[in-house]
Amino acid sequence: MRITAIHEKTIGIASTMRNADIGFDEMTASLIAVVTDVKRDGRPVVGYGFDSIGRYAHGAVARERLIPRLLAADAKALVADDGANLDPHRCWAAMMRNEKLGGHGERAGAVGVLDMAIWDAVAKIEGKPLWRLIAERYRGGETDARVRVYAAGGHYHPGDDLGALKDELRRYRDLGHTTMKIKVGGGPHEQDMARIEASLAVVGHGRLAVDANAAFDRARADRFLTATAGFGLAWVEEIGDPLDFALQAELAARHATPMATGENLFSCADARNLLRYGGLRADRDFVQVDIGLAYGLVEYLRIVEMMEAAGWSRRRCLPHAGHLFSLAVVAGLGLGGHECAPDPTLLFGGFPAGVTVEDGHVRPPERPGLGFEGKDNLYRLMRDLAA
Amino acid sequence: MRITAIHEKTIGIASTMRNADIGFDEMTASLIAVVTDVKRDGRPVVGYGFDSIGRYAHGAVARERLIPRLLAADAKALVADDGANLDPHRCWAAMMRNEKLGGHGERAGAVGVLDMAIWDAVAKIEGKPLWRLIAERYRGGETDARVRVYAAGGHYHPGDDLGALKDELRRYRDLGHTTMKIKVGGGPHEQDMARIEASLAVVGHGRLAVDANAAFDRARADRFLTATAGFGLAWVEEIGDPLDFALQAELAARHATPMATGENLFSCADARNLLRYGGLRADRDFVQVDIGLAYGLVEYLRIVEMMEAAGWSRRRCLPHAGHLFSLAVVAGLGLGGHECAPDPTLLFGGFPAGVTVEDGHVRPPERPGLGFEGKDNLYRLMRDLAA
Repeated sequence: MRITAIHEKTIGIASTMRNADIGFDEMTASLIAVVTDVKRDGRPVVGYGFDSIGRYAHGAVARERLIPRLLAADAKALVADDGANLDPHRCWAAMMRNEKLGGHGERAGAVGVLDMAIWDAVAKIEGKPLWRLIAERYRGGETDARVRVYAAGGHYHPGDDLGALKDELRRYRDLGHTTMKIKVGGGPHEQDMARIEASLAVVGHGRLAVDANAAFDRARADRFLTATAGFGLAWVEEIGDPLDFALQAELAARHATPMATGENLFSCADARNLLRYGGLRADRDFVQVDIGLAYGLVEYLRIVEMMEAAGWSRRRCLPHAGHLFSLAVVAGLGLGGHECAPDPTLLFGGFPAGVTVEDGHVRPPERPGLGFEGKDNLYRLMRDLAA
Repeated sequence: MRITAIHEKTIGIASTMRNADIGFDEMTASLIAVVTDVKRDGRPVVGYGFDSIGRYAHGAVARERLIPRLLAADAKALVADDGANLDPHRCWAAMMRNEKLGGHGERAGAVGVLDMAIWDAVAKIEGKPLWRLIAERYRGGETDARVRVYAAGGHYHPGDDLGALKDELRRYRDLGHTTMKIKVGGGPHEQDMARIEASLAVVGHGRLAVDANAAFDRARADRFLTATAGFGLAWVEEIGDPLDFALQAELAARHATPMATGENLFSCADARNLLRYGGLRADRDFVQVDIGLAYGLVEYLRIVEMMEAAGWSRRRCLPHAGHLFSLAVVAGLGLGGHECAPDPTLLFGGFPAGVTVEDGHVRPPERPGLGFEGKDNLYRLMRDLAA
């Protein structure tokens, strides 16, 4: 079998959303369609990919470097030994030909979104959901019946911020969410405290996480962690510069609150440095590498292996964003949980039809592949791209 | 004053060159022209940029994100207080608006090549060479009369590798070079030894550097450093994965030979981690961050400040590649030396007319800006781009 075409489209997903670090007023994302010559129900199998958001579309690197390499490769170099399906590891190696080590930025996301589409195709060709295929190949077939999810939101609202924030969290609760995450660090300390207190009243002790989006320096981080020490926060996310491992280690040594970081580290080499130098605590902290932005599942398998060799449980992995790809990997590998944007009108929000949140958990979709076909607004764009 | 247009062109610079890590058969690079409304000699001042090579062109990120931000910015936000010239620091901030921290890959090169063009324009508007402008602004006007350069080459040659290698190094010697660098790690250990011995016969003790392009794991690195301990190598460059700081530290603790690394670290945050964790020795090792690939001079000023705060001399900085931009920064800031590809027929090789190597040193060009106008083959392309 072989890949017959690969399409990419950059779409605008601009919104008025803000966190403490950036606004999303010019945000874009890439859609990918990998078309194969394998037929199912009389039609070619197409694997789809869709960016995790926040780092812009990855179409240029895909179009200029990675897609040409995949299309130029000998078809045999991309498939499994029996020739019946793509081999994602071999596809990954073909994409990374003549790429220097280091510099894990846009390239990591471009490889990641293509890797996602390749895995979607592979699972569709096998006729099974990707999470099940992953469990069979990399976990001896063991699966979790339900996957823990949490609702990420709590951005800054114009006007009555606290009222709107509480309304938003109540909506998430009504959808079945229990753990929820809000933004902090985008305003003065007093505003952070007011937002947290308002949110705790809805969400409850031990279930509220906060995300500083790297906004704090040492002094503000210390002040924040000291002030919130008694609040039972589920975790404090990305408190400082994602590459300032020494600051992370210092804060972890001084404060007991669980911490989480890693969404802006895009390779196994970077994640290894986080574990080596960041002082994270294997009994409470979380590693949030974004699977789609960090070279996809092929690299993520290396990250899980590296973490376990360093004495970490994979249950400490809470991948950043990633929508259905992250859900499939979390379910398939048995990671700690899945981040979701609850609003189904967002292209990267909600779940496919039939998947509902119950008591903070979901059952992953049973459709072959990633399940994009059950997510109407996104799948319409994908189908148009492949056509 | 204001920027009236910014042009980018991606050009192929494919060659049969190989190092131990990648081939250059599909390599590309970006040309940039920043056109201003300032007139000199009756014509608009244009600042030019040209990529450091090895990481492909940066046009897509420039075109999709950075150039639109520069062109959309209020002109006042990009210029110095007196309104007479661009302020590269303000331009840098405008380019990085809504960019998340971390992920220093393609973006860092796109910012870098635009930053280069902006500095070229700024120096031309002031009517002086960039190296002199840098010395005035950041070094109290102190300048080095001559800049130390070294010749980088010694790639693998088809056929009679050793004979061709020696011929190549003799050509460099005839051009006036004293310190030269060759590739290792692209073949078996015995080949490395033979190449080094052949090269030492031309270059001499203490003047030959070798570049492993990240090819070695721990065992090979140890074997190599042990076998070459008595050879008086000037330095051993990028011996392992550029982000494996622990390996770097281990090797530095066991082997006395000077080491150099950093060309695949693209931010101050990454360079700081190298110094914190890489075990480099301030009395002998070199830091080789590539100015153009790592967010340009604005970021490099932060790197030099960070290094000096950590007790390092800026003379330990040997920027990777970078052609005329690196030469201007090395001369202006008083760094340790400049890497050059001696072949003037290469777009990124040789020096502008009138600049010659004497006893391993050059005097930087006196033309306003970076001096691209004195480098015929490159300037023809730049002039076409601006027209």
